Amino acid sequence: MSLEPILIDGDWRPSTNPTDSFVAINPTTKEEIPNEYPVSGLDDVEDAMTAAQQAVNELRSLPREKIAEFLEKFADNIESCATELVDWAYAESALPKEPRLGSIELPRTTNQLRQGAAAARDCSWSLATIDTKTNIRSMYRPLGGPIAVFGPNNFPFAFNSSAGGDFVAAIAAGNPVIAKANTGHPMTTKLLTELAFDALQQSELPKATVQMIYRLNPDDGLKLVSHPRLGATGFTGSKYAGLQLKAAADKAGKPIYLEMSSVNPIFVLPGALSERSEEIADEFFTSCTMGVGQFCTNPGMLVLVDGPKSEQFLDQCRQRFSAGSNGVLLGRSAPDSISESIETLTAAGAEIVTGGLAADAPGYSFDNTLLRVTGNDFINNPEALQTEAFGPVSLFVFAKDNAQLATVIDSLEGNLTGCIYSDSEGSDDALYDQVAPLLRDRVGRLLNDKMPTGVAVSPAMNHGGPYPATGHPGFTAVGIPASLLRFGALHSYDNVRPHRLPVELQDKNPAGHMWRLIDGMWTQADI
Amino acid sequence: MSLEPILIDGDWRPSTNPTDSFVAINPTTKEEIPNEYPVSGLDDVEDAMTAAQQAVNELRSLPREKIAEFLEKFADNIESCATELVDWAYAESALPKEPRLGSIELPRTTNQLRQGAAAARDCSWSLATIDTKTNIRSMYRPLGGPIAVFGPNNFPFAFNSSAGGDFVAAIAAGNPVIAKANTGHPMTTKLLTELAFDALQQSELPKATVQMIYRLNPDDGLKLVSHPRLGATGFTGSKYAGLQLKAAADKAGKPIYLEMSSVNPIFVLPGALSERSEEIADEFFTSCTMGVGQFCTNPGMLVLVDGPKSEQFLDQCRQRFSAGSNGVLLGRSAPDSISESIETLTAAGAEIVTGGLAADAPGYSFDNTLLRVTGNDFINNPEALQTEAFGPVSLFVFAKDNAQLATVIDSLEGNLTGCIYSDSEGSDDALYDQVAPLLRDRVGRLLNDKMPTGVAVSPAMNHGGPYPATGHPGFTAVGIPASLLRFGALHSYDNVRPHRLPVELQDKNPAGHMWRLIDGMWTQADI
Repeated sequence: MSLEPILIDGDWRPSTNPTDSFVAINPTTKEEIPNEYPVSGLDDVEDAMTAAQQAVNELRSLPREKIAEFLEKFADNIESCATELVDWAYAESALPKEPRLGSIELPRTTNQLRQGAAAARDCSWSLATIDTKTNIRSMYRPLGGPIAVFGPNNFPFAFNSSAGGDFVAAIAAGNPVIAKANTGHPMTTKLLTELAFDALQQSELPKATVQMIYRLNPDDGLKLVSHPRLGATGFTGSKYAGLQLKAAADKAGKPIYLEMSSVNPIFVLPGALSERSEEIADEFFTSCTMGVGQFCTNPGMLVLVDGPKSEQFLDQCRQRFSAGSNGVLLGRSAPDSISESIETLTAAGAEIVTGGLAADAPGYSFDNTLLRVTGNDFINNPEALQTEAFGPVSLFVFAKDNAQLATVIDSLEGNLTGCIYSDSEGSDDALYDQVAPLLRDRVGRLLNDKMPTGVAVSPAMNHGGPYPATGHPGFTAVGIPASLLRFGALHSYDNVRPHRLPVELQDKNPAGHMWRLIDGMWTQADI
Repeated sequence: MSLEPILIDGDWRPSTNPTDSFVAINPTTKEEIPNEYPVSGLDDVEDAMTAAQQAVNELRSLPREKIAEFLEKFADNIESCATELVDWAYAESALPKEPRLGSIELPRTTNQLRQGAAAARDCSWSLATIDTKTNIRSMYRPLGGPIAVFGPNNFPFAFNSSAGGDFVAAIAAGNPVIAKANTGHPMTTKLLTELAFDALQQSELPKATVQMIYRLNPDDGLKLVSHPRLGATGFTGSKYAGLQLKAAADKAGKPIYLEMSSVNPIFVLPGALSERSEEIADEFFTSCTMGVGQFCTNPGMLVLVDGPKSEQFLDQCRQRFSAGSNGVLLGRSAPDSISESIETLTAAGAEIVTGGLAADAPGYSFDNTLLRVTGNDFINNPEALQTEAFGPVSLFVFAKDNAQLATVIDSLEGNLTGCIYSDSEGSDDALYDQVAPLLRDRVGRLLNDKMPTGVAVSPAMNHGGPYPATGHPGFTAVGIPASLLRFGALHSYDNVRPHRLPVELQDKNPAGHMWRLIDGMWTQADI
């Protein structure tokens, strides 16, 4: 059987000297899906890199409008093929067709593309800054090399390497993309890439603006992210893979933006428990089992002050976790990976409250699982007890008092999110004021009275956070225009003759609505 | 003789278990200056780190106004002690008292401090973003750990670890600083730190907001930049030291901003040569010998298209370099270091046109030196031929034609700056349009008809650029408010109750003049 083609330099062609091949598995049936895909070697990487450089050069001088048109056409194309995309994504990921894939994730994906188009058209993301006194002008512009995008397994559309958030951000900022598909959903990625390529041709963008390969051996992945011609990398995935890529990219001086693991701690303060424990238990259960617990922002840890109400709350959660149905996990390695994480947690002193085993089901599945541990144990072994179990698994930490709650926070690694539930009458306010500043420095997004799953595509979103949740505390992977800054280089122009400046930095505002910081004032006006 | 004290946790005290000691040398006389300074060990690092954490916690809740007051008082203090500072900086660096130290660098330093104060007070640097529809709000806030600042030898005031650009940016963004003095000017740094500490006490900032040690062994330096409690590092200095620090910081997931080597290529196009070669030769000579060639933006490379006018231009430059006097270099290792770089260049095919030897003078000195090489040789050995000689040394590259000019650019590493001189009548325009886009991607700041030395403290400045000129292409070390972003973490607030938000993100504009991006519009208004 022939291998599926890859997209290089505007050509759907066989991989040159693939190092291996692979197939995808339907997680619902545990059966192989017939299509076979190449594992690309360095020949494909080099070809893509050479073609991308040509695209970099051409994109420099194209009007931004062309990029906006491309992103919009791509969104339209996705909507035209929604049924086929949803069918394939379901087959490859087992995520429910409705509402998840068809009514939530697909519209989110097209929304991101259209927001990216607006950002590309408007160009306010570039923080254009003009100092008329010195005649120095600066803005963020494309990086001068393609962006390698590694997509995760858990969002086949919205974080897809050929259509998702990193893709949109890289393209909207003016860079070509070399997409490395997630091996869990290669056909979904192929279809999206086809739709992207159609849009590319309609918009007359350089043919190598989007290129796609399915998979690389780990060593070749390191070579991609450290390639001399690369602009930067956007990666969403496991900490294990992410840190290896980071080491290679760092050594080569190549920017890499990683979104890795996070346990997303939830703090439920005593007053909130007294006031509305059933309601919070509902929210917690819903959040923990959304997407079968396979969200980057899944609440994997809940911290309480010890006491009868906390025990009662755990029991309320236990009931929901035990009674809840088990969804189908994304892939064949998921149950073992979750088991391993649970073993790490129990070896470090955690006890299983409910669940703990792979579920007996036709598809890949795992019990909804709760564990508990004391604050003492947590403080003594914080690293092991922050092991992420990527599934419907959460650990309760019982601090013995408020002081220990603070110490627990002090032991936390960087996380994407942190939530605090407090009562509405003010009895938790003093404790909140102790907890929040400590937690604040350890998370990218701080929430009140709300679970962290459901990452709004908002300009004020931070889907990021301190290491090791990500590789850098200053950037977000979600939210337009902020996420575009990752894929821009700061370009300053000193005494450059007016007609040689990028249109965005010339005296006249390019389209009358771009925001620019002129002599310390943000304005949409001309100079 | 007792060692000079370090400043830890508000206390001028002896280093605990110093690993060694050192003295500074007066470069003009080559004599040791009597004061002796400790090389700190890890005890001092740990003490500083512990005290800094307390300062981090206290700074979180202080009004920004306090930080602004501190920076302004510090600037005032510097002005009050200008004579003593200039005397010491001259003794330790040999940089001329006038105009350089007293009338250029010192006012620049106080100007930076006052601009930092304005940025801290105003807080527009933080890119506060409010999405009223989702009630998500974000801004850049302090990193949650101190900033280690490593200052370079060539600007004893303006880039000093206790008073310069990185110091100002870190403090104005709300972070405490652990300053690591440059060992070339320890007493200048001690005096500045004393003035900072006085201002600190007057402004009632946490006493560990500024701490200072003089020196660390290389291994201990690596431990500082990778310390679990560190926020980030700002480093200006050699590529050799910078890359080692970068590797350690990257491995620990700690942000590090480096400003390392750069040859700052100048392209003089044929029309410009015909039009005004004497004038350009004057500018080039002045720029190359400013600060005895020891500027980060010193033009270390000049690229021309081969031909009689180019030869004539080289000769015009040669005359100026030969006739020019030799200044005193910053330190005792400078002449040998320049000689080594010149050996690397000549081994790779460059020929000496004038100079090339350490000068016979009472102080450390080196001939004004020009070298030349063909475009062919450059393309065949670009790495060696981009060796930075940190002094009054520059390499002419003669490309055989326009096409080779482009290939030379393609071989360039990342640089802080790149300049293009072209004629005023348009005869160079076609070549400019070929050269500029290629050069643009390889430099942080692109200039027209102007030498790169003299880095304006402008909001539109980029004193940064692609690796290996720096560690990241998105940041500038000079320019307020842009340089503050290096020392901020992106903090998002999701559904956080109004009174718990930072004042900068509450509905009411905090002081009526902060710029915030509210629902896509930059405004100074309340919500």
